[in-house]
Amino acid sequence: MSANTFGEKFRITTFGESHGRAVGVVIDGVPSKLKISIQDIQIELNRRRPGQSAITTQRAEEDKVEILSGIFEGKTTGTPICLLVWNKDQRSSDYDELKEVLRPGHAGFTYLAKYGIYDYRGGGRASGRETIGRVAAGAVAKIILAKNKIQIIGYTKEVAGIQARNIDYAQIEKNSVRCADSVAAKKMEKKILEVIKSGDSVGGIVEVVIRGCPVGLGDPVFDKLEADLAKAMLSIPAVKGFEIGSGFQSAKMFGSEHNDEFYFDKKTKRIRTKTNFAGGVLGGISTGEDIVFRLAVKPASSISRFQRTVDVQGVKKKIKIEGRHDPCICPRIVPVAEAMAGIVIVDHLMK
Amino acid sequence: MSANTFGEKFRITTFGESHGRAVGVVIDGVPSKLKISIQDIQIELNRRRPGQSAITTQRAEEDKVEILSGIFEGKTTGTPICLLVWNKDQRSSDYDELKEVLRPGHAGFTYLAKYGIYDYRGGGRASGRETIGRVAAGAVAKIILAKNKIQIIGYTKEVAGIQARNIDYAQIEKNSVRCADSVAAKKMEKKILEVIKSGDSVGGIVEVVIRGCPVGLGDPVFDKLEADLAKAMLSIPAVKGFEIGSGFQSAKMFGSEHNDEFYFDKKTKRIRTKTNFAGGVLGGISTGEDIVFRLAVKPASSISRFQRTVDVQGVKKKIKIEGRHDPCICPRIVPVAEAMAGIVIVDHLMK
Amino acid sequence: MSANTFGEKFRITTFGESHGRAVGVVIDGVPSKLKISIQDIQIELNRRRPGQSAITTQRAEEDKVEILSGIFEGKTTGTPICLLVWNKDQRSSDYDELKEVLRPGHAGFTYLAKYGIYDYRGGGRASGRETIGRVAAGAVAKIILAKNKIQIIGYTKEVAGIQARNIDYAQIEKNSVRCADSVAAKKMEKKILEVIKSGDSVGGIVEVVIRGCPVGLGDPVFDKLEADLAKAMLSIPAVKGFEIGSGFQSAKMFGSEHNDEFYFDKKTKRIRTKTNFAGGVLGGISTGEDIVFRLAVKPASSISRFQRTVDVQGVKKKIKIEGRHDPCICPRIVPVAEAMAGIVIVDHLMK
Amino acid sequence: MSANTFGEKFRITTFGESHGRAVGVVIDGVPSKLKISIQDIQIELNRRRPGQSAITTQRAEEDKVEILSGIFEGKTTGTPICLLVWNKDQRSSDYDELKEVLRPGHAGFTYLAKYGIYDYRGGGRASGRETIGRVAAGAVAKIILAKNKIQIIGYTKEVAGIQARNIDYAQIEKNSVRCADSVAAKKMEKKILEVIKSGDSVGGIVEVVIRGCPVGLGDPVFDKLEADLAKAMLSIPAVKGFEIGSGFQSAKMFGSEHNDEFYFDKKTKRIRTKTNFAGGVLGGISTGEDIVFRLAVKPASSISRFQRTVDVQGVKKKIKIEGRHDPCICPRIVPVAEAMAGIVIVDHLMK
Repeated sequence: MSANTFGEKFRITTFGESHGRAVGVVIDGVPSKLKISIQDIQIELNRRRPGQSAITTQRAEEDKVEILSGIFEGKTTGTPICLLVWNKDQRSSDYDELKEVLRPGHAGFTYLAKYGIYDYRGGGRASGRETIGRVAAGAVAKIILAKNKIQIIGYTKEVAGIQARNIDYAQIEKNSVRCADSVAAKKMEKKILEVIKSGDSVGGIVEVVIRGCPVGLGDPVFDKLEADLAKAMLSIPAVKGFEIGSGFQSAKMFGSEHNDEFYFDKKTKRIRTKTNFAGGVLGGISTGEDIVFRLAVKPASSISRFQRTVDVQGVKKKIKIEGRHDPCICPRIVPVAEAMAGIVIVDHLMK
Repeated sequence: MSANTFGEKFRITTFGESHGRAVGVVIDGVPSKLKISIQDIQIELNRRRPGQSAITTQRAEEDKVEILSGIFEGKTTGTPICLLVWNKDQRSSDYDELKEVLRPGHAGFTYLAKYGIYDYRGGGRASGRETIGRVAAGAVAKIILAKNKIQIIGYTKEVAGIQARNIDYAQIEKNSVRCADSVAAKKMEKKILEVIKSGDSVGGIVEVVIRGCPVGLGDPVFDKLEADLAKAMLSIPAVKGFEIGSGFQSAKMFGSEHNDEFYFDKKTKRIRTKTNFAGGVLGGISTGEDIVFRLAVKPASSISRFQRTVDVQGVKKKIKIEGRHDPCICPRIVPVAEAMAGIVIVDHLMK
Repeated sequence: MSANTFGEKFRITTFGESHGRAVGVVIDGVPSKLKISIQDIQIELNRRRPGQSAITTQRAEEDKVEILSGIFEGKTTGTPICLLVWNKDQRSSDYDELKEVLRPGHAGFTYLAKYGIYDYRGGGRASGRETIGRVAAGAVAKIILAKNKIQIIGYTKEVAGIQARNIDYAQIEKNSVRCADSVAAKKMEKKILEVIKSGDSVGGIVEVVIRGCPVGLGDPVFDKLEADLAKAMLSIPAVKGFEIGSGFQSAKMFGSEHNDEFYFDKKTKRIRTKTNFAGGVLGGISTGEDIVFRLAVKPASSISRFQRTVDVQGVKKKIKIEGRHDPCICPRIVPVAEAMAGIVIVDHLMK
Repeated sequence: MSANTFGEKFRITTFGESHGRAVGVVIDGVPSKLKISIQDIQIELNRRRPGQSAITTQRAEEDKVEILSGIFEGKTTGTPICLLVWNKDQRSSDYDELKEVLRPGHAGFTYLAKYGIYDYRGGGRASGRETIGRVAAGAVAKIILAKNKIQIIGYTKEVAGIQARNIDYAQIEKNSVRCADSVAAKKMEKKILEVIKSGDSVGGIVEVVIRGCPVGLGDPVFDKLEADLAKAMLSIPAVKGFEIGSGFQSAKMFGSEHNDEFYFDKKTKRIRTKTNFAGGVLGGISTGEDIVFRLAVKPASSISRFQRTVDVQGVKKKIKIEGRHDPCICPRIVPVAEAMAGIVIVDHLMK
């Protein structure tokens, strides 16, 4: 257990269940004298919040954040920051029917096996609401990154096989799938609406780019920057894969093409590489080039179709999960992936 | 820093540079009264050792392991086990020419940027020799796994686009690429011999299957089993990607196909799933199905071809790395991936 | 930084400033299916609360605890438990006068030097209120200990040179100094009332006895049981010393007297020691005898007398801290010491 | 388990049993480009080595240290440093007689209870030889401290009730008890020779002073500087108590005397305190004054007298431990205490 803490120097501990009283995070290790307003955090939470468009779940979650500690007269004091969001909906009746039935693709089965008890309401701790604490902490990390001129950009790169091709980061927040290609975004939206109609869900790929990262971040051997990023990404619900730079494509490449050629860049007066198949890291340490990685996002397990399953006693059941679910969670994974990447980078910056 | 330690309960700390006096590992947290012989460890090290076939580097490394502590009268005592391999070759003259030149795709550049000093001989700590300590520790982990009837099988799944299709684990150690498909293995070997001729290197994919893992392993939220496995794999030199179960393929799938149907298995008297797109984990906790994951392995950076680069001052240089290099490191990554997977599983078993 | 977390398996993270919005704790690693009521926690917080008698500070702190997460239908679920106490008093005006003046013996000076900013109201994070989270977590630890038939008893052993001699644990909660000797308790109370009159404060010694601890708890070398207990105790505000068993008295002893003689106890059918100078530990591991240790508690720094000091600019000042302070904090340190001891023991039990 | 590692940023992992093949340490987190010679380390090991005078054990231990990794061309590279000392004596025959008998005051009993197996030869891992790794690591810490103008001075303050009174640090290495008072040293030596004659051992007190520590070291709440020092000291074999500044004396003091008065020191241009009852820390953070603490050292358990005990089956036995033992371990604890204090300070410096 003891697994609700992430990071060493910039260390977050999240708590709270989907339908418990509150969800939140304690952030330890934030430098003192940093200006933080509640808006800085609320903005990021609003990006994660459901119900923002026709293609997301329509659950009404307000997600107003409160600051309980660590900030004095608008500035951090070096003491732990506790951020809290109260849960509006704590009714359990909606879920009574599902109580004993194992939902395919959902963690209820493994939680029950491990703990012998499970707060099944809305997924309990295995709910997407658990990521509220991550995004709130990520907002704090972003303030530190901004001071270091480091920028983290996440976007939906692929949905149901439709790929973003003409990348323009300015488009990301302008469409409901958070895609960096406005043409692909329209296709994705259309596809997702079809998926909603069929009561299904669909997967996708999210790409994250970290710009302005200095040379020398990351620790060789076990705490390689890419290793810590991989762990951070695979800790996000529904993520099934991580690749950096050339990623799985590298399996088909030759050393003579993959090796990024070093050159001296007269403009920035530093050694750079002409290509970036490495994805911004060599031997676990940042090269100063953009850090580029992607995550594979599986289709959400909650679908409005009948599925065959069993209950906890092993008796055959049919299940249909009522209500409006996220047909594609990529747009809501984007701020979570950015938050986790930000936490990893800040943690290494502070080491 | 402080990044040469991995694991919490079964905790390994590796040390040693490629051309320093020795490489080794201290393993802390091994249960007492476990029978361990030096052969148990040597067998695994021999699998990692170069020079085993026509398609690997021909460097003569004997890699005899010594046990310095923690074992008394053939059994573990619960105290830390130090395992050591002396380096035969500590000459630096071979590397004098390369001293100031940045090798494309190699970590020398980032180590120098981070530390301002670098034991360039044979790659120093960023050498494949660093993995000796991991494999030695993994041999100890395997003994614990065997007692728990858990088996870890790694093999080369793809090289230069050639894929293993008819999987037969019995074939793995019978061919020099460690491929589980004997027909594909021959094609891979042929391709690798061509790569050697052209002085190049090539990438591939390694798959690892964990069989016999009980339900309930792994911690939700940040220490999800797949998150810890992802970190372990991305910490291996040359690994650029990790995917579990459906992995990147899940991006193109629908929830109705991806959700693994639960059923009650009369034979084993437990709840199982008909498919295993999840790859043996749900919500970060093992389901009892096989845990299946893959890693993308980039082509080795050391190639016998002229490459354009610069030296540490940024002056243009051409470089050709003499000697015989690994044209495809997948067969030697296999025991390292198994070792790291074993360490993750044992660590979670002991939690 | 990152120093607000204690424990490995049973891990607590406290947050909150004295006059911020709330103080609290997140407890990670609590086993599932444990029955916990809010009363279990409130009882311990009430022991810590000021204003309980004529000899403590008269500040009115209600300290009602709320459970925000981790408990479902009266039982723990294995997910993190967040416990919160709202602060009633958030006014800063009372402290405006003291804002710039360094209080002798108080941490304001070092906090300012370290962080450059300080929530001076009521001592901020360096206030006794920080221990609320510890005591709340300790209440949860006590439930686990009770299941393991382990009992932790703390009491005031000495105040201003007056020592408890006829130890009777039944007396502890019957007098306002929490002394295990009713006769000594009366003398201590009398002495403390004199101290109040003179506007001063006084130190003392607290003893903690752990009964029922099994043989084999604690890890040799760095995480010795006594080492973890020492750290836990020295982390409590105002504690200046720790000794176990013979403690500082051992400095004057000979091996032939200090070595506890082993014998076979027919009643309990196990090997025991006739004396217990070791204090229940040998080589960092519990022997099964009572674990007995003491802490030295300095006199509280807040006194109602004029004291010479300087302000943050180094200008000479005279300061008198108005209000009613704790003349002797031993009775309120007792539940905190018990809580921290309980957390250490539970953490080792779960390893 | 997993308890053979100490420190977070400057992290040491020790290994090795008294009569195993070797004892040693891996130090992770040492900054790069630090000049280190083998002599720097050997000097400190020689201070710890037995057989230096008439009043210590006469065992011939050469304790030649070897550097296995982490140092390249005389400088650290930022990679882990492995330091090794081979054990000369691996015979077990000397100990065969003691194999089954529980030695009073010795950890054999608890090791057996915890692990079910015990390398009884020379105490195994519960031997003083385990501290070799600590002292070697401490020598590296001292090099970092010297660069930061921080000095650590340890000395024997009391033996068998004889106290050092006229403190002169220059005397410490000039007498065999490492006492800072030459007159007291002579009395102590005389007393210890008597103790040797009677086949007994005697305890004492060691004081450590840290000079030149900057303001602001240490983390409030759980990782207070004094809490980390307490843990470090109590992790040393035979230490039964720790006190900082006024320590246990504070229990008899009033706030008006204990509160150290702040003043502005014109010479150093910083705020200081007139007295130092705090011992150099307030709220867990260093004040810039000398950090002063003491440890209680129990008499060594190995004595040349017959003692009553039982064997592992509980059968009554008489035991006399042959050979020459340390009659008073204070002089040999001094370098260990300095080493551990140095590691704590460097660890906090690097945070």
